[in-house]
Amino acid sequence: MAKVLFLPHEVSAEIGKDETVIELAMRLGIHINASCGGVGACNKCKVLVESGEVLGEKIDELYYKACTLFPKTDVVIRIPVESQVERSALLRKIRAQALERKEKLKIDSPIKRLYLELPPPNIEDNTPDLERLLFALKQKGIKDPYIPYHLLKKLPYVLREKDFKVTLTYFEDPRNQRIYIVDIEGGKKEESPLGIAMDLGTTTLQLELVDLVSGETLAYTSDYNPQISYGEDVISRIEFTRKKDGLKLLSERVREKIAFLIEELLKESGKEFKDIEAFSLAGNTVMTHLFLELEPRFLREYPYVPVAKGYPIYKAKELGLPLKEGVPVFLSPSVASYVGGDITAGVLASLMAEEEALTLFIDLGTNGEIVVGNKDFLMCAACSAGPAFEGGGIKCGMRATSGAIEAVSIDPQTFEPMILTIGRKRPKGICGSGIISLLASLFRTGLIDKAGKFRRDLKHPRIREGEDGFEYVLVFKENSATGHDIVFTENDIENLIRAKGAMFAGYQILLESVGLTLQDLERIFLAGTFGSFIDLEDAVTIGLLPDLPRDRFFFLGNTSLQGAKKVLLYAEKFLELERIAQMMTHVELSNHPQYMDYYMAALFLPHTDEGLFPSVKGGI
Amino acid sequence: MAKVLFLPHEVSAEIGKDETVIELAMRLGIHINASCGGVGACNKCKVLVESGEVLGEKIDELYYKACTLFPKTDVVIRIPVESQVERSALLRKIRAQALERKEKLKIDSPIKRLYLELPPPNIEDNTPDLERLLFALKQKGIKDPYIPYHLLKKLPYVLREKDFKVTLTYFEDPRNQRIYIVDIEGGKKEESPLGIAMDLGTTTLQLELVDLVSGETLAYTSDYNPQISYGEDVISRIEFTRKKDGLKLLSERVREKIAFLIEELLKESGKEFKDIEAFSLAGNTVMTHLFLELEPRFLREYPYVPVAKGYPIYKAKELGLPLKEGVPVFLSPSVASYVGGDITAGVLASLMAEEEALTLFIDLGTNGEIVVGNKDFLMCAACSAGPAFEGGGIKCGMRATSGAIEAVSIDPQTFEPMILTIGRKRPKGICGSGIISLLASLFRTGLIDKAGKFRRDLKHPRIREGEDGFEYVLVFKENSATGHDIVFTENDIENLIRAKGAMFAGYQILLESVGLTLQDLERIFLAGTFGSFIDLEDAVTIGLLPDLPRDRFFFLGNTSLQGAKKVLLYAEKFLELERIAQMMTHVELSNHPQYMDYYMAALFLPHTDEGLFPSVKGGI
Repeated sequence: MAKVLFLPHEVSAEIGKDETVIELAMRLGIHINASCGGVGACNKCKVLVESGEVLGEKIDELYYKACTLFPKTDVVIRIPVESQVERSALLRKIRAQALERKEKLKIDSPIKRLYLELPPPNIEDNTPDLERLLFALKQKGIKDPYIPYHLLKKLPYVLREKDFKVTLTYFEDPRNQRIYIVDIEGGKKEESPLGIAMDLGTTTLQLELVDLVSGETLAYTSDYNPQISYGEDVISRIEFTRKKDGLKLLSERVREKIAFLIEELLKESGKEFKDIEAFSLAGNTVMTHLFLELEPRFLREYPYVPVAKGYPIYKAKELGLPLKEGVPVFLSPSVASYVGGDITAGVLASLMAEEEALTLFIDLGTNGEIVVGNKDFLMCAACSAGPAFEGGGIKCGMRATSGAIEAVSIDPQTFEPMILTIGRKRPKGICGSGIISLLASLFRTGLIDKAGKFRRDLKHPRIREGEDGFEYVLVFKENSATGHDIVFTENDIENLIRAKGAMFAGYQILLESVGLTLQDLERIFLAGTFGSFIDLEDAVTIGLLPDLPRDRFFFLGNTSLQGAKKVLLYAEKFLELERIAQMMTHVELSNHPQYMDYYMAALFLPHTDEGLFPSVKGGI
Repeated sequence: MAKVLFLPHEVSAEIGKDETVIELAMRLGIHINASCGGVGACNKCKVLVESGEVLGEKIDELYYKACTLFPKTDVVIRIPVESQVERSALLRKIRAQALERKEKLKIDSPIKRLYLELPPPNIEDNTPDLERLLFALKQKGIKDPYIPYHLLKKLPYVLREKDFKVTLTYFEDPRNQRIYIVDIEGGKKEESPLGIAMDLGTTTLQLELVDLVSGETLAYTSDYNPQISYGEDVISRIEFTRKKDGLKLLSERVREKIAFLIEELLKESGKEFKDIEAFSLAGNTVMTHLFLELEPRFLREYPYVPVAKGYPIYKAKELGLPLKEGVPVFLSPSVASYVGGDITAGVLASLMAEEEALTLFIDLGTNGEIVVGNKDFLMCAACSAGPAFEGGGIKCGMRATSGAIEAVSIDPQTFEPMILTIGRKRPKGICGSGIISLLASLFRTGLIDKAGKFRRDLKHPRIREGEDGFEYVLVFKENSATGHDIVFTENDIENLIRAKGAMFAGYQILLESVGLTLQDLERIFLAGTFGSFIDLEDAVTIGLLPDLPRDRFFFLGNTSLQGAKKVLLYAEKFLELERIAQMMTHVELSNHPQYMDYYMAALFLPHTDEGLFPSVKGGI
């Protein structure tokens, strides 16, 4: 069997018969970007064969697709930097200060602690341990609590630990008022119960450790979703689950990562594992399916049916979470296949469903989920914007990791760019916020026209005809980290215009479906971490956001995580979350008769109808 | 290390340093009787050293106590027949035909099946699988059922197996009307759901496989409780749990045996594992604790506190039962440390708590539990009769296994006995029913007096002074299977009189505590398998049962098993069972001021007060 040495990792292993290089890497836990699930379509998994003989498809003179690659002899394979992800970049500074919507409510977690001094038994009163506890609880107004089996086993020891003085942790299921005992400990506990809130994103996991009495966030951590190694987007991950044990593998990987991140939260905060009494999770429909190991196949197949929208409150142990056995897991409900629990949690966090003001809630990203409404109604849609804002389908696009160009401006005279990269490294490619800035700059400086086409008349070293047609050279190879020019092509621009067009048409259809227009919007909430990195003027300039008074825009940050946290801190929020999910009417944009007209009209910069963008001036 | 060869098993193994022969046997799963938990007190674990050198205590010239035995060289150890238990004897014919009290109710199991034809999804209605199912259930009047996680995972496959036609199995928790889904299968199932009812006895396990629609018993099986190897009675088993992992071991052993017996039920009935949808168990308080792996120590220690009396309806998987994950396990509630779930289930099965007739319910055995009452009140007590009726504390006493003398009569002229053994083998000893017959015969023939003393004046080869005082030789060694005389000593008689005296005083105290007397009893129910083997006249003759018209006596058979079965067949019986447990007032006999007087008065045959036994005539 042939041996493969991976660089820069310096890990080597024998490759199996019929095993591709990407499959071997997966098996070893070595990351190679892969957006198409290994079908040879995305060209993301590029690797360099430094020595040895191989069979496989080439991307260009240098690179092979790892998913097509079979070594014929021992080989040395180098994974280029663009094909990797780096965690450090997740902690970059956000550009706009996120406005987390504050609750007026007093903190009232569904998880409560209760200190009880039971009368110790004697020969006149030798009531059994369980009934003794239940009687004391009844006197406190807690009737018929459910005591799980593992606590019943522990009960006789715990009661006798501190002479029948115990601290009980319990929660009330908001749906049926049933009380579940989460833990029982000897003596009087002074520590607050803790909870973990988590945003389970397709790309990143973000977790907070929360004090359920004070509401304080004690620690925050994040990392990439390890499922990235098996497909960058939801579609390629669903494809991966078709492999034998693929679903199980994806589910296990994310749980392993969660276990690791919980350890980090505890280390950072100095808190104890045993005080974690609740877990709350918000994620999109596919991520939630994969986490729960629910078959995601039918989400993709006509007529696109999820296994579930809402979930019972399961216990940590049954879900394989590395927490105490009886810890309740709150799962944010979804609305449809592509409007998930991250959006319902986001709407919850934004408070828009409790307020009068007509609000447009936008979560940019692959699906570009949007919600319009207020306390009386909520309409939602997924815009299928595609991955352009995440760098996908863009020639030199990349995820927002170290070395990604995150901000661009172009000198209107010289047409020379000024760029900033994440981590201030030599540039490797352009990430979403950089792409938006770049497109806006090109348009403002007149280097491209309303249709997104480059000025053909201009003689400038940065504008040239490349292999994919006209392009702007943002970084010449001498300066790049990859040894290649970093360019922005007309194809890229077309993809971006399609993406922003899909979003804008989405806003319009959703508003029209309730007889409203953009002008009626009192507020625009930009959700998601990505949203926080966008330059508002740039986004309006390209027509991604509507041209409304800037004081109506608010960057909310990670509303999915904020929503998951609120469920832990306010007992009533879980029902509110379910109310939001129930209330949200899902509009299938592609079925809407006017959608195509609106979409076509939005395929210009900023829009065919310039009246919609009075503040925007293009260069031409 | 020394090697031990066990005969007649022909199993050999190396014995550990500091390991006794009984500990080695335990490790190998070889049974040796042991009543005292291995402390050297009971003399039950006698073994023959056929070759090799040993250190240890002798019981007599031939036998060693296995629990004190350390081999010094390789040894051959024979375990005599009396020290073993044989399962075949469990199936012996009962003497009296048990009268199982029939219900007038129609069968209405809490476990139900429901066939549903869901509308398959289409693009206009792509409601998720779970919500589709919940909606259909709501239309059938089933609101907010709990779907366990493992079924949610299975749901998308099951729905698509037969085009969204499914059979649901569910149960309603009678305590809170909550519906729990037990299983979902594709298509229309014609098979009835099945349940297993079990009596978890200290000595034997008895199981029935029941059709939950017809109520028919499809198979029956029984076997010894494998915990016997670790102590014959509840006290020695509690002692055993003090060893490291002792509780876990006892709990595992009984579950293993249950798994084995479930296989047998399925084989016998030709039914399928997947149709078993419920499990119902009744056992005494200690057995239930050991089954659930609940610390039993505090049951034995002052002030004698059980971990619990009543239990939530846990699921098979969490209790480690080898059934489908979501199968509910109904556990019969107990009243006190020594009045357990077998008694509440027994009272349930007897129907006495639903009827007017004043009834005395008697379950003979170590604790001799008794209940007096009717539909309006229930008083109960444990008589601490000791193990005499099970052959314990009786010189040649043994359990009711093959070769045990189960029936005796003595010729009033010749004083020669006629005996019958279980399985009609050469006699090894005397079991409970034989002991009662023998005592009654000795009294009737005048061989013993009211005080239980042998006639000193009689010259008869069968009456002699042995090493333990006067005794009657029931079988001379030429005829016995053990090579020893089988005798019945004055000590034995004293033990028996104490035991029956404790029972009789119990009846009186219990009745007196509600202002009644024996004459007020309209019915006497004899419960338990053992009860069915007793000769009624013999039992009245020795004063074990009150001397009332014989048509007031009913042998009910194994009411614990019957009660467990009723819980499976009649939805309302679970609440009725809890009502019974609540209603039963426990009287602590030893605390009662008159108890000693009554007890002392009962230490004669049949009683000091002959007026209580008008029909009984002793020989003297």
